[in-house]
Amino acid sequence: MATETMLAVVKTHPERGVDITRVDIPCCRPHEVLVRLRATSVCGTDVHIYNWDPWAQARLTLPRILGHEAAGEVVAVGADVQGIAVGDLVSAETHIPCGHCYQCRTGKPEVCRHLKILGVDTDGAFAEYVALPEVDVWKNDPTIPLEFTAIQEPLGNAIDTVLVEDVAGKTVLVTGCGPIGLLAIGIARASGATCIVATEVSPLRRQLAERMGATWVFNPLEVDIVEAVRAETNGDGVDVLLEMSGNATALRQGLHALTQGGRVSLLGLFGEPVSLDLNTEVILKDVRLYGITGRHIFATWYKAARFLQSGLLDPSPIITHRFPLAEFDQAMDLIAHGECGKVLLLP
Amino acid sequence: MATETMLAVVKTHPERGVDITRVDIPCCRPHEVLVRLRATSVCGTDVHIYNWDPWAQARLTLPRILGHEAAGEVVAVGADVQGIAVGDLVSAETHIPCGHCYQCRTGKPEVCRHLKILGVDTDGAFAEYVALPEVDVWKNDPTIPLEFTAIQEPLGNAIDTVLVEDVAGKTVLVTGCGPIGLLAIGIARASGATCIVATEVSPLRRQLAERMGATWVFNPLEVDIVEAVRAETNGDGVDVLLEMSGNATALRQGLHALTQGGRVSLLGLFGEPVSLDLNTEVILKDVRLYGITGRHIFATWYKAARFLQSGLLDPSPIITHRFPLAEFDQAMDLIAHGECGKVLLLP
Amino acid sequence: MATETMLAVVKTHPERGVDITRVDIPCCRPHEVLVRLRATSVCGTDVHIYNWDPWAQARLTLPRILGHEAAGEVVAVGADVQGIAVGDLVSAETHIPCGHCYQCRTGKPEVCRHLKILGVDTDGAFAEYVALPEVDVWKNDPTIPLEFTAIQEPLGNAIDTVLVEDVAGKTVLVTGCGPIGLLAIGIARASGATCIVATEVSPLRRQLAERMGATWVFNPLEVDIVEAVRAETNGDGVDVLLEMSGNATALRQGLHALTQGGRVSLLGLFGEPVSLDLNTEVILKDVRLYGITGRHIFATWYKAARFLQSGLLDPSPIITHRFPLAEFDQAMDLIAHGECGKVLLLP
Amino acid sequence: MATETMLAVVKTHPERGVDITRVDIPCCRPHEVLVRLRATSVCGTDVHIYNWDPWAQARLTLPRILGHEAAGEVVAVGADVQGIAVGDLVSAETHIPCGHCYQCRTGKPEVCRHLKILGVDTDGAFAEYVALPEVDVWKNDPTIPLEFTAIQEPLGNAIDTVLVEDVAGKTVLVTGCGPIGLLAIGIARASGATCIVATEVSPLRRQLAERMGATWVFNPLEVDIVEAVRAETNGDGVDVLLEMSGNATALRQGLHALTQGGRVSLLGLFGEPVSLDLNTEVILKDVRLYGITGRHIFATWYKAARFLQSGLLDPSPIITHRFPLAEFDQAMDLIAHGECGKVLLLP
Repeated sequence: MATETMLAVVKTHPERGVDITRVDIPCCRPHEVLVRLRATSVCGTDVHIYNWDPWAQARLTLPRILGHEAAGEVVAVGADVQGIAVGDLVSAETHIPCGHCYQCRTGKPEVCRHLKILGVDTDGAFAEYVALPEVDVWKNDPTIPLEFTAIQEPLGNAIDTVLVEDVAGKTVLVTGCGPIGLLAIGIARASGATCIVATEVSPLRRQLAERMGATWVFNPLEVDIVEAVRAETNGDGVDVLLEMSGNATALRQGLHALTQGGRVSLLGLFGEPVSLDLNTEVILKDVRLYGITGRHIFATWYKAARFLQSGLLDPSPIITHRFPLAEFDQAMDLIAHGECGKVLLLP
Repeated sequence: MATETMLAVVKTHPERGVDITRVDIPCCRPHEVLVRLRATSVCGTDVHIYNWDPWAQARLTLPRILGHEAAGEVVAVGADVQGIAVGDLVSAETHIPCGHCYQCRTGKPEVCRHLKILGVDTDGAFAEYVALPEVDVWKNDPTIPLEFTAIQEPLGNAIDTVLVEDVAGKTVLVTGCGPIGLLAIGIARASGATCIVATEVSPLRRQLAERMGATWVFNPLEVDIVEAVRAETNGDGVDVLLEMSGNATALRQGLHALTQGGRVSLLGLFGEPVSLDLNTEVILKDVRLYGITGRHIFATWYKAARFLQSGLLDPSPIITHRFPLAEFDQAMDLIAHGECGKVLLLP
Repeated sequence: MATETMLAVVKTHPERGVDITRVDIPCCRPHEVLVRLRATSVCGTDVHIYNWDPWAQARLTLPRILGHEAAGEVVAVGADVQGIAVGDLVSAETHIPCGHCYQCRTGKPEVCRHLKILGVDTDGAFAEYVALPEVDVWKNDPTIPLEFTAIQEPLGNAIDTVLVEDVAGKTVLVTGCGPIGLLAIGIARASGATCIVATEVSPLRRQLAERMGATWVFNPLEVDIVEAVRAETNGDGVDVLLEMSGNATALRQGLHALTQGGRVSLLGLFGEPVSLDLNTEVILKDVRLYGITGRHIFATWYKAARFLQSGLLDPSPIITHRFPLAEFDQAMDLIAHGECGKVLLLP
Repeated sequence: MATETMLAVVKTHPERGVDITRVDIPCCRPHEVLVRLRATSVCGTDVHIYNWDPWAQARLTLPRILGHEAAGEVVAVGADVQGIAVGDLVSAETHIPCGHCYQCRTGKPEVCRHLKILGVDTDGAFAEYVALPEVDVWKNDPTIPLEFTAIQEPLGNAIDTVLVEDVAGKTVLVTGCGPIGLLAIGIARASGATCIVATEVSPLRRQLAERMGATWVFNPLEVDIVEAVRAETNGDGVDVLLEMSGNATALRQGLHALTQGGRVSLLGLFGEPVSLDLNTEVILKDVRLYGITGRHIFATWYKAARFLQSGLLDPSPIITHRFPLAEFDQAMDLIAHGECGKVLLLP
C-alpha cells in the first residue's frame, strides 16, 4: 500500500496557507493501525498552523499533514496491535504520551512531559488515511452517527471542563460559545446544571447556545454580565464558571460573577498573560480554579461515547458546515469570520 | 392561639394504629415558627410508628403527633427568629441537630449524635399546624407546585444517594423503586447517568420507574439481574449501585453486577444484619460504599429546589394518591400493599 | 462589671498609630461570653490597621480595639449560651458569620457574604477582656501550652493551606516563611510531605524554616528557585506549591517549579493584581489552584488542637518575641523589620 | 543463559508443601527484563499456596515458582524494553494488567478484569532469577536500603489503605498488626494521624505496633476496644478505621468504635462472608467504606519510595526474620505461629 498515494492537507512551506496535494499513504508500523478517514473536523490548532503564527513556527517541523479530530475505518493493523481489527470504526485520541515520565507513570498521560500531538508533531488526519498509534485508537459503537464520532475529541475537552467537579443541581456561567463552549453547555445541561448562563458576541453562536440548552444567553458587549448573573441567581452568583473564551475581560467578569467558594474551569487559551485581582476574586473568596488540558485516556472517551449513544447529548446543532478536503481554504475563511459552529471536513 | 385546637394524627396508645383527634395548636417558642400545613406526605417511618414495631416501641414517648414530610405557610414567628416572615411558604427539614457535638461542630449535623427527628422525637406534621425550629425551616419559591414542595425532604435523600459522587456519563443500577428509589431514578437521569437499570417487584412501581427515566426496568423475581446488567453494559457491570430496597439479596446481586472499582450508595434499611462476601465483592474489587442518611442542611435543599424549579425533575408521576388527614388509616392500608408511589395527606 | 475599665490597644484617630488606654470592659450579651485574655498574638491585619493603610481606611469604623488571635479564660457567660462555663480556657475563632446567606446555609461560613471579623468590624482582643460571640468560642484542652493556644487561629490558616489536598508522600514548595508559612512547613512535615523546599529572604526566617522541618531552604534573591526545585525532585518539579508570600514573582516561579498536574494553594495576599501566563502555567499544565481564606469552623480547629496536643507539631521555634500590651508600638517596629517569627502580646 | 539453572521454591505437586529445587533460569522475552534477586519477602498469599488451600487449588496451574515481593538487579533487558538498563536496581509490582479491559482503559489497572499475579499466575520471585514484564518494573533509588526495597509492594498496600483519604489531624483505629497493619501504623503516623489506636492479639506484634508509632495498643481479647477507643477520643470514636485483620469481630467492633460520618478502609481478607448491621453501623451513621486491593501503578510506588528515602518511615522494626531460600519451610513454620513481623528470604 505504501506506494499508493492519497489526497492530504499539507503545510509544506513556512508561511501562511497549505497545499492540498497527493502524498504517499503512510505505512502502518507494528504498534499502529491504518485508518481510512470518513469524517474529520477543524480545531483552532489547525487555524494556528494554517496562519503560521509564532506558536506554529516554534513548534512544527515541515512538511506536516494537519488535522487531528477524526473518525474512520481501520484498513490495516500493525503486527503488535491487540484488540483492533480491520473494519473497526474508530476515532483518534490525539495526545501521544511517552509512557515513561512521572506523569505517564502516575496516571496522567494527558500532561505527559514529552507529549506529542497528532497533526502537530506527527502527520495528521486531514487526508484520506492516517496511521494511528495503538494507544490512541478508540473504537466507536456503530450506532453513533459518523459525524458525531468525529467530534468526540473536542467533546472530551468539554466534558473534562464541565465535569472536573459535579454540576448537578448547580448554577453555571459559560463565557464563550465557540464549538467547545457549545458542547460544554450541552454537557452541563445533560449533567444536571439547573441554570446555565452563556455569554457570546456572535449572534449565530448565541442562537446555538440556546439550542444546546443554555437558560440565558447574553451578548457581553451589550449586557452587564455580573449584574445579569446576579439577577438570575438570587444575588448569589453562579456556583461554577466555565471559561471557554480565552478573553481576559470575560475571565475577570466571570470571577466577579462567581459565588464565594465557587469553582472555575479554565479551557480557553489567552493571547497573552492575564492580570487578576487574586486577593478579592480568588483567595478571600476561597475559589477553586482548574486548568483543563483534557482528556483522561480513556475515561473521558467512555463518557463522550455514552452521552452520544444515549441521546443525552445531541450535538447536531453545533455541526453547521461541511466541506470536502479540497475546499480547506474556504473552511479557514469561514472560521476566520467566526459565524459557524463546528466545521467538518469530509475526505 | 394556644387555646385553639386542630385536627391531628396522634399515636396515643402503645399499640398498632393512631387516633385522629383534636389537640391544642402548638405554641410558638422564641426560636420556632408556627406553620399552617398545606400538604404533607407519608414516609416509611410513619408506617413503623403506625404499626408500633420494636423500633417505634423503643424510640417513642407518647402521645406523639406523627409526620415529618411537610409544606405549609408561616402564620406566626418566634421572637428570636430572623429572616422568616408570616406568609412565607416553607418546608420542613426534619433533622433537629443539637449544635454542640463533634459532628455538629464539623459540618455534619445530619449525623448529630443527639439528633431528634420531627414527628418521632417531637410532635410532627400530620396536623393542621406544626411548630418548627428555626434551624429546620426552608423557604419555598412560590413557583414550585405546592405538592412538590412537600416531598423535598425525601427528594433530598434521593439526591444525596445519587450524587455522593458524580453520575454524569456513568451507568447506574437502582435496586428498589419505592418513592425514594423512583426519585433517585429521576435525579440520576437529570444528572447525566447514561444508562439506568432499575429493579422492582411491583408492576405499578416498575411502570413509574420507566416514566421517571429508567433505561431498563426488571422484575428481579423473573430476570437474572446480574446477567441483565452485564448485557446492557458490554459485560462491564454498572459503575454505580444505588441500593434503595433494604433487601439483602438485592444488595448482593447489585454488588455482583457492579464493575470493579465501582461505587455503591446504601439508603434502604435492612430488616436484619446482612451477610456479605466482602473479599470478592468489596475488597478485591476496590469498591467504595457510602452509607446515606441524608441530607446536608441546606446544601441538599438548594439542589432539590433547583431541580424542581428548573423542571429538570418532574416528580408528578410519583405522587399517585392523595388523602385527607381523616383518612390516614386508608393511606396506611394502601401503603401496606405497596401498589403506590408517594402518598400525600392534605390537611 | 460594665463600669470597670481595662487596658486596651485602640485605634482612636484616623491616622497611623494607636492609643494604649483604659476603656470600659465590654458587657456580655445573651449569646456572648466574656473572656479575660491571657495571651494574644499579632497578625498582618493588625499592622495594616496600625499603619492606617487604604484597606483599613475603607473598612474600619473608629474607635476600634485591635487584635483577634487570642486565648484566655471565660469569666462570664451570656444567658443564652450553652456548653461553656466560667473557668473554661478558650480561644477565638475570628470570623463572625451571618448565619443566613447562601454560604452560611451550605456549610461554608468561612466565606459568609456578610462576614464580620473580630478586631476589625467588632472590638478585638488586644485588651484585658474581650466579649466573644458564642459561635466563635473554641474550648482548649488544658494540656496544650497557653501560648500555643493563642496561635491556633493562624495555625488554622496554615492547616487549610497545606491540607486542602493530601500532602502525604508528596513534594512541596513553600514560598514565603512568615509565621503562617513557617506553620505550614511544620504541618506539611507532620502530614507526610517527604520533601519540603522553602524560600525566604530573611535569614532568621530561613533558619526557622529549617527548624520547622523544611528539607531545603533557599534565598530566592541568591538561588534560581526553579532550578533548585528541579534538582531536588529528579527534574519533575514539586507536586504542591504553597504560596505564602504575596509576592508575584514568587508565585510565578512557584508555578514554573510545579510539576504538570500539580496543586497550588494561595494564601499570601498580593499588593496589586498579578499577571500570570495562564496558558503555560495553569491550563496546559492541568494545574489546580485553591484560594485559601480559611478556617472551617470548627473542623480546622479540631486538627489544630490535635496537632498541638499530640506533639506532632511543635510551634515553639516560631514564637520569637513577647511584649506586654503597653509595648505594642515596639512590637509594630519589630514586625516592620521582618526579623521575627510570631510576636505575642501578653496582657 | 536459558540452559543454566537456578535454585527456586516450586509448588510441583497438588498438595501441602513445596520443592526447593533447581530449575531453568527463565528466558527474557522482548517486553521483559531478567532480574537477579537479592531480597524477597513472604506474603500471606505464599502461605495459602504452600498450604494448598481451596483458593490455591482453584487458582494455580502447576508447576509454579512462588513469591512476588522482591528486589534485585537487572541482568538482561528484552529487545522492546525502554528506559531500563542492565545494572538497575529494581523491585516488582506484582499485578500484571491486561491493558485492554474497561478498568485498564480508565486508569484502574489494579482492578483489571484479567489480572495476573506474579508468583500465582506466572512464575515468581522465590528463586535466584525472575523475568518481569516491563510494565511491572520499578527502579529503586540506590540510597534506599536493599531490604526496604523488597517490601515496597506490601508497603504500597498499607499506603493505599491509610491514604485513600487524608489522615492528617485525625484519629485512627488499626485492627490487626500483621506486617501490613504495622506498615499502616507507620504510614498513618508519618502522615499526621494524631491518635493511633491499634489492636492485636500477638504480644510481639503489639510491641512492634508501639515501635511503629501507635499511640495506644490493646489486646482485643483483654480490653473492650469500643470503650478504649471512646476513652481516648473524648467519647467521639475514631475518624478512621483501618481493618487489617480479616476478623469479623474486629470489623464489627471497629465500626462500632467509629465516629458518625467516619471512614473505613478494608484490607484484611475474611475467611467467610461477614454479617454486618448495615443500618446502625453504616447507613444511619453516614459511613464511607473503601475496599482496598492496592496499588496505583505507579503513583503508590512513588509515595512508598519517598517515605523510605526521606526517612519519614523506618520499617526496620518490622523486618524480624531472615532466611535463605533453602530454609523456606522454616519460614513457613514461623509464620504459622504468628510471632513475627515481615519475614525475608535472601537468595
